Amino acid sequence: MDQPPFHPINASPGLSVNDIDTPALVIDLDAMERNLRLMQRFADQHNVKLRPHAKMHKSAALARQQIAAGAVGVCVQKVSEAHAMLTGGVRDIYISNEVVLLSKLELLVDVFIGLEEKNTKISIATDSLTGIRNLAYALQNRDAQGSARIHVFIEIDVGQARCGVPPGEAALPLAREIALHPRLHFAGLQAYHGRAQHQRTVGERRATLAQVMQDVQRTLDALKREDFTAELVTGAGSGTFGIEAASGVFGELQAGSYLFMDADYAQNEADPAQPTFEHALFVKSHVMSVQPGRAVCDAGHKSHAIDSGLPRVHGRGDDLRYVSCSDEHGVLHGSTLPQLGEVIWLIPGHCDPTVNLHDQMIGVRGGLQHGVVERIIAVDARGALT
Amino acid sequence: MDQPPFHPINASPGLSVNDIDTPALVIDLDAMERNLRLMQRFADQHNVKLRPHAKMHKSAALARQQIAAGAVGVCVQKVSEAHAMLTGGVRDIYISNEVVLLSKLELLVDVFIGLEEKNTKISIATDSLTGIRNLAYALQNRDAQGSARIHVFIEIDVGQARCGVPPGEAALPLAREIALHPRLHFAGLQAYHGRAQHQRTVGERRATLAQVMQDVQRTLDALKREDFTAELVTGAGSGTFGIEAASGVFGELQAGSYLFMDADYAQNEADPAQPTFEHALFVKSHVMSVQPGRAVCDAGHKSHAIDSGLPRVHGRGDDLRYVSCSDEHGVLHGSTLPQLGEVIWLIPGHCDPTVNLHDQMIGVRGGLQHGVVERIIAVDARGALT
Repeated sequence: MDQPPFHPINASPGLSVNDIDTPALVIDLDAMERNLRLMQRFADQHNVKLRPHAKMHKSAALARQQIAAGAVGVCVQKVSEAHAMLTGGVRDIYISNEVVLLSKLELLVDVFIGLEEKNTKISIATDSLTGIRNLAYALQNRDAQGSARIHVFIEIDVGQARCGVPPGEAALPLAREIALHPRLHFAGLQAYHGRAQHQRTVGERRATLAQVMQDVQRTLDALKREDFTAELVTGAGSGTFGIEAASGVFGELQAGSYLFMDADYAQNEADPAQPTFEHALFVKSHVMSVQPGRAVCDAGHKSHAIDSGLPRVHGRGDDLRYVSCSDEHGVLHGSTLPQLGEVIWLIPGHCDPTVNLHDQMIGVRGGLQHGVVERIIAVDARGALT
Repeated sequence: MDQPPFHPINASPGLSVNDIDTPALVIDLDAMERNLRLMQRFADQHNVKLRPHAKMHKSAALARQQIAAGAVGVCVQKVSEAHAMLTGGVRDIYISNEVVLLSKLELLVDVFIGLEEKNTKISIATDSLTGIRNLAYALQNRDAQGSARIHVFIEIDVGQARCGVPPGEAALPLAREIALHPRLHFAGLQAYHGRAQHQRTVGERRATLAQVMQDVQRTLDALKREDFTAELVTGAGSGTFGIEAASGVFGELQAGSYLFMDADYAQNEADPAQPTFEHALFVKSHVMSVQPGRAVCDAGHKSHAIDSGLPRVHGRGDDLRYVSCSDEHGVLHGSTLPQLGEVIWLIPGHCDPTVNLHDQMIGVRGGLQHGVVERIIAVDARGALT
């Protein structure tokens, strides 16, 4: 199929922020870059690697910016995301997710070996013998004469109840299987607790992570009894990374949302062990209807994801709330309603799936009031689902 | 900005349905075409026009197919969607939504007058004097020498509490304003009650629509007292169109979801006054992890929208339920868990925003078990937010 039509937002470098059409996804570059530096400094101070999750921004340019600042590479969730990042010049990619179908793994190997000479490093998570065997078979099948190796992390379920084998002995058959395949390298453990990221109090998050640490340690101990060494334990998100960083167990942080922050993460009680990040991602919207008791803006859930709650109106409190959402509309209530045509800046509930709704992010320098468009950032992996 | 990378699904005409990569949006063309014919026959029998909402499928090819079967044109919600439909050869487009910014209205006029010779008809909804004046100004400004006219519907709020002036007298200032501008034509009333579509019992929907009819009649009466004639009342969705069609008040149905149906609409008690439609839109997914008590499929809420609830597993009952969702994962519980790698067909909770997540829909002929890809349908207006 030909590429479908593209609907660029009316914005190019030099344009005033006031002239950006709506709804549009806008990055406050100053805030984003402060977040970026703050996180890298934190990782450096704690002597842990930072491998931000690119499932969040889906942009090769932002991934390269994170790597230039000190990140070791990025995480992705899908083979097609890995492809988008490789095409965009990123050379150290970890698919922190299970890929079991041979067809998908062969695609991954095809892209990888096409780039091997450029110091590309590919890692992947697994929780099944089938996944490991298909990966080894794909390498053998598509790169019989080559020597490319893929790094494999065993995922353990530390309480998220999603992917991952149970902690402890269940990792052993997988480690043994990886060891059978010379082109696979056992790299360590993947241990991520997604729900813990959004537990609201520091106490809850610390209690959950204490259990995670026990689960990881138990698995490391089981592996050690068979002389398997997990070089690295990787995990952590923007809600808990301060705990993983101080644990002495985790060597790599996968947090991604810190770069943009969203309304959901902003509801977390601040952990003094973590730096505080600023909102850097906004949906610019405007008021398209004012009727008795309400205003309606032109940004509904086709322009921002609501899986983690409705957006907040930036710069406003209870005097203006985004109270309900349909595909193309957001209804605003409050004591001080905006006027018809007025600009409304929304802080999305959840940044990752919000970015995935847009083909481009408009990077603004100088703030949302008086700023100027500096760069248009392509969402390279938008719609990269497979 | 250049167009961002495109991530086509591995599917081309002739391919077996079994070979479509996942997750992918798949249309059962046989079911879709039965839905299409059923709806057109219903409209014909009730002597009402059918103007399906293209915000749902966002595809010019499907819009043309609906028009070829008898639809008068399509609705859209945004100027950029209108643009995508016009570019795709659709010539009768109603923006059933408020557009008030001059910049947006000028864009609309630019596209419209570029096509005027081809019998293009553009209509738009309004609920403000500003919207009407800016529309007239845009026509005058961008087409000073031309004679293009735009049809304007006054939107009344029939209980949705979103856009629309209150029913009755509040429509009069708008009708008077439209009459001041010779290039605007007062076409009638827009009256849509979105929430009514999803009220579960027929009784609830009939009670809500009885109020809608009173609101519409009261507005028509007020207009008539000043000699304004509303040629057409337009509205209705896939949950209530049987009521509007039989009302003698509504002359045009805007239902869109009937073409694909979704899990949310399927929860409505069937109205004997409406035909019953089949599910025709599915997310093909596969099981990427099986762990104690659960299976995990590779379709999360980046591949299907969950604003109206989680998807259902097609062909399964309580023995396999999609119980929780994250960006890239769906967790399945039930008494009969599928195996690793097994294909899972999901019926999305809400078709409109699900389609908007995908660049393409894969049309399959011959069913989901043994079918063959017949056509790839571009989601022309994907990301057309402005």
